[in-house]
Amino acid sequence: MALTGVLRPGHAQVRVLNLEESIRFYRDVLGLVETGRDAQGRVYFKCWDERDHHSYVIREADSAGLDFLGFKVLDKATLERLEADLRAYGLQTTRLPAGDLLETGERVRFELPSGHLIELYAEKTIVGNGVGLINPAPWDGAREHGIAPVRLDHALLYGPNIAEVQKIFTEVLGFYLVERVLTPDGQDNAAIWLSCSHKVHDIAFAEYPEKGKLHHCSFLLDTWEQVLRAGDIMSMNQVAVDIGPTRHGVTRGCTIYAWDPSGNRFETFMGGYQPYPDYEPLTWTFDNFGQGLDFPQRKLHETFLSVVT
Amino acid sequence: MALTGVLRPGHAQVRVLNLEESIRFYRDVLGLVETGRDAQGRVYFKCWDERDHHSYVIREADSAGLDFLGFKVLDKATLERLEADLRAYGLQTTRLPAGDLLETGERVRFELPSGHLIELYAEKTIVGNGVGLINPAPWDGAREHGIAPVRLDHALLYGPNIAEVQKIFTEVLGFYLVERVLTPDGQDNAAIWLSCSHKVHDIAFAEYPEKGKLHHCSFLLDTWEQVLRAGDIMSMNQVAVDIGPTRHGVTRGCTIYAWDPSGNRFETFMGGYQPYPDYEPLTWTFDNFGQGLDFPQRKLHETFLSVVT
Amino acid sequence: MALTGVLRPGHAQVRVLNLEESIRFYRDVLGLVETGRDAQGRVYFKCWDERDHHSYVIREADSAGLDFLGFKVLDKATLERLEADLRAYGLQTTRLPAGDLLETGERVRFELPSGHLIELYAEKTIVGNGVGLINPAPWDGAREHGIAPVRLDHALLYGPNIAEVQKIFTEVLGFYLVERVLTPDGQDNAAIWLSCSHKVHDIAFAEYPEKGKLHHCSFLLDTWEQVLRAGDIMSMNQVAVDIGPTRHGVTRGCTIYAWDPSGNRFETFMGGYQPYPDYEPLTWTFDNFGQGLDFPQRKLHETFLSVVT
Amino acid sequence: MALTGVLRPGHAQVRVLNLEESIRFYRDVLGLVETGRDAQGRVYFKCWDERDHHSYVIREADSAGLDFLGFKVLDKATLERLEADLRAYGLQTTRLPAGDLLETGERVRFELPSGHLIELYAEKTIVGNGVGLINPAPWDGAREHGIAPVRLDHALLYGPNIAEVQKIFTEVLGFYLVERVLTPDGQDNAAIWLSCSHKVHDIAFAEYPEKGKLHHCSFLLDTWEQVLRAGDIMSMNQVAVDIGPTRHGVTRGCTIYAWDPSGNRFETFMGGYQPYPDYEPLTWTFDNFGQGLDFPQRKLHETFLSVVT
Ligand SMILES: CC(=O)/C=C/C=C(/O)C(=O)O
Ligand SMILES: CC(=O)/C=C/C=C(/O)C(=O)O
Ligand SMILES: CC(=O)/C=C/C=C(/O)C(=O)O
Ligand SMILES: [Fe+3]
Ligand SMILES: [Fe+3]
Ligand SMILES: [Fe+3]
Ligand SMILES: [Fe+3]
Repeated sequence: MALTGVLRPGHAQVRVLNLEESIRFYRDVLGLVETGRDAQGRVYFKCWDERDHHSYVIREADSAGLDFLGFKVLDKATLERLEADLRAYGLQTTRLPAGDLLETGERVRFELPSGHLIELYAEKTIVGNGVGLINPAPWDGAREHGIAPVRLDHALLYGPNIAEVQKIFTEVLGFYLVERVLTPDGQDNAAIWLSCSHKVHDIAFAEYPEKGKLHHCSFLLDTWEQVLRAGDIMSMNQVAVDIGPTRHGVTRGCTIYAWDPSGNRFETFMGGYQPYPDYEPLTWTFDNFGQGLDFPQRKLHETFLSVVT
Repeated sequence: MALTGVLRPGHAQVRVLNLEESIRFYRDVLGLVETGRDAQGRVYFKCWDERDHHSYVIREADSAGLDFLGFKVLDKATLERLEADLRAYGLQTTRLPAGDLLETGERVRFELPSGHLIELYAEKTIVGNGVGLINPAPWDGAREHGIAPVRLDHALLYGPNIAEVQKIFTEVLGFYLVERVLTPDGQDNAAIWLSCSHKVHDIAFAEYPEKGKLHHCSFLLDTWEQVLRAGDIMSMNQVAVDIGPTRHGVTRGCTIYAWDPSGNRFETFMGGYQPYPDYEPLTWTFDNFGQGLDFPQRKLHETFLSVVT
Repeated sequence: MALTGVLRPGHAQVRVLNLEESIRFYRDVLGLVETGRDAQGRVYFKCWDERDHHSYVIREADSAGLDFLGFKVLDKATLERLEADLRAYGLQTTRLPAGDLLETGERVRFELPSGHLIELYAEKTIVGNGVGLINPAPWDGAREHGIAPVRLDHALLYGPNIAEVQKIFTEVLGFYLVERVLTPDGQDNAAIWLSCSHKVHDIAFAEYPEKGKLHHCSFLLDTWEQVLRAGDIMSMNQVAVDIGPTRHGVTRGCTIYAWDPSGNRFETFMGGYQPYPDYEPLTWTFDNFGQGLDFPQRKLHETFLSVVT
Repeated sequence: MALTGVLRPGHAQVRVLNLEESIRFYRDVLGLVETGRDAQGRVYFKCWDERDHHSYVIREADSAGLDFLGFKVLDKATLERLEADLRAYGLQTTRLPAGDLLETGERVRFELPSGHLIELYAEKTIVGNGVGLINPAPWDGAREHGIAPVRLDHALLYGPNIAEVQKIFTEVLGFYLVERVLTPDGQDNAAIWLSCSHKVHDIAFAEYPEKGKLHHCSFLLDTWEQVLRAGDIMSMNQVAVDIGPTRHGVTRGCTIYAWDPSGNRFETFMGGYQPYPDYEPLTWTFDNFGQGLDFPQRKLHETFLSVVT
């Protein structure tokens, strides 16, 4: 949790081309738990070990991509304060009413210079992770239905002006910079990894000319063996795999990038280290970005730089 | 990091009966990195992936046990504020001068009703984790010298009046309760696990008649395979093992408890989940504490309840 | 496979006190695949990755224990030859007709001096492991139903005169000694591990005054993480756990010993090394048997020596 | 061990372009144990857990590639018999005197139709794996020096007429076919995996117009986590990585292919299943070879088909 009271990425809403096919994919292959559908036809999912009502929402649309990403904050007072801080910083905010997203309180939304819609919210119905609050087992059958990630972990977004985005996240929202890749001339950041916790990233951005692009939403697995299992399940289900299994140099995380049926990249990953706000950021030079992306292969896969939704 | 700016358990000072034997143990068997010795004869260690100068200090004494446990806070202003808050709460605090512990700034110390000395400090020299800040490899040879934990993770302390201890940690220092074990009559807590981060515990307490007792300091490993390796190394080096390898039900962590040559219990563990302040605490009933302690065995090992230093 | 053509332990028949309860245990908790029931009321199981019709058979009886253990041999000519060799060695053999065990050819049975009934057979219907013979996936859902071992791996039997048993296995059946534990006086073997393959043991024996006792049947898992998962599932299902998770010093295997509902011990384990007939056997002195049994703990658990069925 | 008495691939001799650079690579990066040098300038290595004097020999030459691959057989009588069998089959054999390879007995050499030199030998000095024969620890420091594979496991060779090669290995030497990839027309085998044990392959061949080519020698690791560690070490040491970490569909093995400093591909891998001679071979159709090679990616990497030494 940031000192500001920002807790974690709590939901992403993603556009899919075919709702039924996507439900099958997210429920049975990625192994999310379906928790609801709303009047707009949106379908709500959570990861098995999450306790809030949902973390991933899909809606059918003509093009894939990210509608918005929401961060849960500590409470309503925090929400008020952060809205005031965003406005004081010069950003416009809008309010979405409680219930607009199922089981979710009021949301404060603003647009980043990179073109992404970010939301803050303080309330979402707690549904639990299925093992209860008294003498809980460490897991139950839901952990083994499909890939079954533990939680929505972070997202990597592509868009312009990430220097200004970084300022908003660090100066207003209380995030800190964990790692970064320099531009070829070494003068700017080509990509930044930001944390509001001790996760190696809660959100990341890469500089990109087009606004509002999604590189990937990332789902956490517990172990490297679960990453292998994820790759097996992807192959058994004809999921298009992009990169991995491998280790990122950046963040040390162990990963597979793949695409959902609509072409939205997602990541199943584990590992990395646990940074603190008093850590100096780690820096990757552009010439070594290949090692940062794919540590064993040291290869700057072309799709990483160019394929987004 | 707590909203109050408390970052993490940053050092423990532990008494050992024979300094040379203990140095060999902590350096070559547990695999800590020795970083200094001071005029008082204390020896300083850090875990390989920690960046601050030290996290574990030993001194020779006639009896084993814990001298004090220190938490790093965000900055000097935070230190001032927390000292004021502790005093306002009714606790006495004392200041230890910068340099009293090597490479460490001023410390604010207070005594818990459980008889433990807790310190806060804002400054410690950053020495890095050995892989540098530019294009860092995920690890280096230090990761494989001895058991080689990643960091000092938490401590479990035994003493009286943990209800009051819990109040201090939650109401003054900004910790939150993650899990607890009830007393047999279900009216009180027999043990509490508290977090100032998203770690499943930064500190834990068990109710115990005697004041100021150490149950264990705990060192983090990355994987269950590293826990097996730790057990192998313990056996190869005649380390006295208490419990494990096994999984705790409480915290889900995977663990070995063992004793240093002086009889101070330590833990090498991995795993658990990552809680947030908006999570309801998990509760273990006393009749099921066996499963909480040793999930596969469901056994309330007698040593757990009675052997402390 | 031994030079004699003995392939592997192919089936064990075990007595259980309550058939229905045992079916639920073996099918849903241990996660064997039920493949048949016969007119005598016996229930047949296989492990998910085995290709033959069954490897584990249970029948209801008044006392728990092992009825017999069968080894598959290469073909009918091998069966004839080995029967002749056993007789030439001085052992009585009897023939059980094809079909006596479901989907199984004729069996040659003999009794060891230790009181155990051992069988050889050449034919059992191949039912496959569920992933097919063309472009097979590495696993399917059966791998995650219950503990779901890969195969029946070995058994440890207790009885008198294991020196003579060893002669039969090595001189007639083509096994070789992989490891052994000496008696306290160092003059004899207290326990022997024998292989007819490159498995670290296909069968093992410990000297024991009573005849025909079962210490455990052992089921193979792929990884140490699967051993942890097995322990979790045992705890979730109130299975009585004996020892582990831990590593055996003997064989290096990583193990949990537990009991089925009738008190038959079984093992879920992984690992060890892969010996060859040209390897010198490894020897454990009796004073160090604790480390051989439980490498991290170095503890000669009392149940290991005394609890058998 | 095959019924014929063929035990395992016991040594490979490989040509390197620069001896000193190669010694550093094989000793410090791959982590083999150097065990000797001979008058011809050859350097001998073993894997840490192997007991024989060496399994991998390098010599400096103008071009990279494989000189020969040797299989250890049970004893001298077996060597005589197999030589007679090879001759009876119509192959020419030659004898290399004891001592020609350090600490190695007489070798029987023959050439395959694929152009590869294969040797059989019965004797090589046992040097042990470093942990002794009495109360051995499961491993020692050698396991963590460099990648440190457990053993030389298999080789994949490219050359013409693998149908005839298969006949020699199965009809004369007692191997059996474990898996195969069909040619595009489904009439022949494009690649075959052969075992003389319960390893999923002791040797493999792919049809290729040029004679005597080496695709890779393969070194066994214990776990998927060790494969990740191998990839880390490769990257830290600028080793050219070809494919992986990933899982092969063929054999289920988990792998990294990389190149030594001379361009000889090698593999570090773990896993797979343990077949028996009574198993029907598994068949991969050519259109699905991508999944056979790289299960998660389902990609028939071009280098796999074309880069050999
Ligand atoms: C004792 C218990 O039930 C669980 C403990 C979890 C821990 O990591 C620990 O504090 O050692
Ligand atoms: C009992 C002992 O020391 C080692 C045993 C190894 C085994 O896999 C077993 O037979 O269970
Ligand atoms: C090439 C392929 O499809 C599978 C190969 C499996 C192996 O272990 C190997 O020979 O490298
Ligand atoms: Fe990511
Ligand atoms: Fe602990
Ligand atoms: Fe066993
Ligand atoms: Fe291979």
